[in-house]
This record gives sequence, C-alpha cells and structure tokens, in this order.
Amino acid sequence: MKQNIYDNPIFFNQYKALRQKQYNYNRLLEQPTMKSLLPPLANLQILDIGCGMGEFANYCIDHHAKHVTALDVSSNMLAIAKQEHSHPQIDYQLQAIEDYEVASNSFDCITSSLSLHYVKDFDAVIRQIAQKLRPNGIFIFSVEHPIATARHTLDDNWIYDENNNRLHYAVDHYQEEGLREQTWLVDGVVKYHRTIATMVNTLITHGLTIEKIVEPIPGKEAIQQLPSIEKELRRPSFLFIKAKK
Amino acid sequence: MKQNIYDNPIFFNQYKALRQKQYNYNRLLEQPTMKSLLPPLANLQILDIGCGMGEFANYCIDHHAKHVTALDVSSNMLAIAKQEHSHPQIDYQLQAIEDYEVASNSFDCITSSLSLHYVKDFDAVIRQIAQKLRPNGIFIFSVEHPIATARHTLDDNWIYDENNNRLHYAVDHYQEEGLREQTWLVDGVVKYHRTIATMVNTLITHGLTIEKIVEPIPGKEAIQQLPSIEKELRRPSFLFIKAKK
Repeated sequence: MKQNIYDNPIFFNQYKALRQKQYNYNRLLEQPTMKSLLPPLANLQILDIGCGMGEFANYCIDHHAKHVTALDVSSNMLAIAKQEHSHPQIDYQLQAIEDYEVASNSFDCITSSLSLHYVKDFDAVIRQIAQKLRPNGIFIFSVEHPIATARHTLDDNWIYDENNNRLHYAVDHYQEEGLREQTWLVDGVVKYHRTIATMVNTLITHGLTIEKIVEPIPGKEAIQQLPSIEKELRRPSFLFIKAKK
Repeated sequence: MKQNIYDNPIFFNQYKALRQKQYNYNRLLEQPTMKSLLPPLANLQILDIGCGMGEFANYCIDHHAKHVTALDVSSNMLAIAKQEHSHPQIDYQLQAIEDYEVASNSFDCITSSLSLHYVKDFDAVIRQIAQKLRPNGIFIFSVEHPIATARHTLDDNWIYDENNNRLHYAVDHYQEEGLREQTWLVDGVVKYHRTIATMVNTLITHGLTIEKIVEPIPGKEAIQQLPSIEKELRRPSFLFIKAKK
C-alpha cells in the first residue's frame, strides 16, 4: 500500500465532505454489508486495516469486542479517528499492513473496508493477514469490484446516450492486472486492478477457506434515500470476500 | 436444464461445423483449462454432465479413469458420442442431471463443461452434485462468465467504433439473475445469468470447499492460431470453479 492520497489536503477535505453526507455508498451499502458478514464480536481481538476515521473500530467496541488494533497510512485520518472515536480498547497505529509487526495468531477477526485495492503486493498482504489470524479466525474485506477497476481509465466507465442516460457499463483490459489511475476528487488517485480469480486464489494459497462472496445489492430503502445507488443493480461497485483460517 | 437446442437440426449442424474447426475456443481455451484443473484420473469414477460428443469422456478413459458416466440431454450429441467415442468403460445416458438417479457418494470427480448456464435451477443441480460426490471428491465446472451473460441482449456485447474496432465490452443488469435469450447460430438460445457470488455461495452452502477459480487467459500460441481469441484479455468469456467435497 503506502499510497497516501488521504494526506493530500485537497483530496482529504473533499473526502471528508463526501463521508459526512447523510446518504453515501459507505453508509448505505459498504458498511451494512461488512456488518452483516461479521461474526459475533463479543470478546474478539480485531485488526482493522485501513481504519480511516475509526467509525468501524468504534462499532466493534460498541458490540463488545475485546480490543481493536486500527491501522491506517494517513495521519489525517488517524487524527480524526483519535479525536472522534478514541477509546482505551482501540489502538490506532500509523502503519501499512505490510510493515506492521505483531506475533502470529494474534487476531480473531481481521477486516478491511475498501483499502486493499490501494495495495500493490496483494500476495504479501494476504500472507501477513493469514499469519496474524488465529486458527478459525475470520478475514473479511471489501474492494472495488474488478468489473469497476478493469478499464485503464477509471474516471467514468458508464457510457451515456445523447440525453445523458446511462446505456451500459464499459469493461476492458480485465486480464491486465496492475496500476490504474483515476480522478476521484483529485487527479492521480492510484489503485490496483486484480481479477476475482487472483483474489480468491491468493486467499486459498495462504491457507484460508472461502466462506462467502458478496456483490452487494442496495435494498429498496437505500434506493429511496439515494436514488443514484440503483445503478448498483446494473454493475456491482464492491466485492466482499469472507474467509476462515 | 432440459433446454435442448442441440436437437434443433439447424443449430446442430452449425454447431458441429464450429466444433470441427481446427482452432476454436473449446480446443484452445476451455478444454486446456478443464484438463489443467483435473486431479490424476487413474482409477477414478467420473460423472461428466453435458458430455456432448464424448471427447472429454474419451480423454478420461485415455488417462486411465476407471469409468465415466456421461450425461447429455441431446440425442444428436449422444448419437455422435456413441459413434466416435464408444468404450466399454463409458456409459452414455440421455439424461438431465436433475433427473439422474444414482446412489450418493458414487463419484470421485464430477465435471461439466459449458453446460450449467443452460440450467434454470442451479441450486438443485449443485445439491445433486454435492450428494453424488464422494467425500474429498472433486467438482470442476465451466460456464459462460457472468460478465458475458449479464446484459439482457447477449448477441454481441462488444461496442464498436465507426471503423468496426472494438471499443469496450458492455455490461449491464448484472444483479438481475435469470433468463437470457441469445442468437447463437440460431435464434432463441436460452441461457441463465447468475452472479459469481451466487455460484460460489451455492457450492459452499452445499458443503463444497472452493479450491480454485479460473478466468482463463489464452496463451501466445493460442493467439497465434486464432488471433481473435486475444480479446479474452479484455474480458473473460469463461469462468471455472474447482471445489472439493
């Protein structure tokens, strides 16, 4: 990982504004899906990779997790996390997962919301995660869906007619894994595209068993609150994988 | 399943012509991938669902399988299979998997090449397969990739510019599972679209463990032999899942 667009001040202010909206993809789609996949949290030792502003770490503590180690590479993010969601059972650390040193078998549950598509060396990160997880521990992550990251130009892959109606979603270069640049809030946001096969097989190679794959579908209520989210029915934005050690 | 387009005489003759071409997707991409995923076949009891003209059943016997039960719903297909690949250890049966009655735990390996997208009730078929497989038995299947079956109109999802160059591939309606009609050789070929999540989770629900997912990539030699297959790099046509009971 170590790309740190979240410490770019222009990006960060726009990102904060987006996240503060009452209805956004995080609140209506990503977080509900993540929470639906969690095991009962009581007494668990949790590692959250890419913890951002700490809402999820806080949610875990609210649901009786024993302790959350919350990593992020952005000091901007962590400053807000510490301000808004400080708690004696949450340990915020300015760390990339690749550099984070901790004994093997330390965690009952490892989570990562929309951060592993910033990681260049997915195999190395999954190896680390598999090692840090206790036997029978659970790993759940979400990334941008490979359908959405495939094309070289990620800026807007919807194709429109002359009246600005969405005709279809454009996919290309699916098998060319690697770097994609995107203008998202600012220029030059860097993500890494990889195929579903690569992600699933990397987990299996490192000894994890696939428990569930989710390509989240917004419910009726979410569509009422944010009508534009209905386009998730036409192509998925997110991919979740839940696996067990 | 039970759609039986292969017994439509016009379709069947065109399909035969396609399959007899020296270089086609089957020979260059689907079959090599299927064979690369097989366990050692010696002494195995195999069930092949949608056996077509029997080449794969014959391959298994050539590789020392003990016995192959080869099902197909097309009497046209089976007539050719029996003519070209008859063998005392191959039992051809005019049967849909849903109707095929056999004791549980009968097979060491169950395969299906490009037939399960014709199946309406995927859950019922996977339940049957999981039951008929012995403990530690292997199930490998290929289907048309959900990226390719998502759109309502399957006829040609490539979008072209005015010079007939492929611009990108069109995806739409991904979350709307169900029937898709296609003109492939003839009008009205019926397939069923389902998401990757649905396929993977159905296998897991029925007690199978995912061992590998493959979205096949043609090699350099295949591209030399059939240059048009290079577009597989831009979007996958096929999805393979290998699972273990």
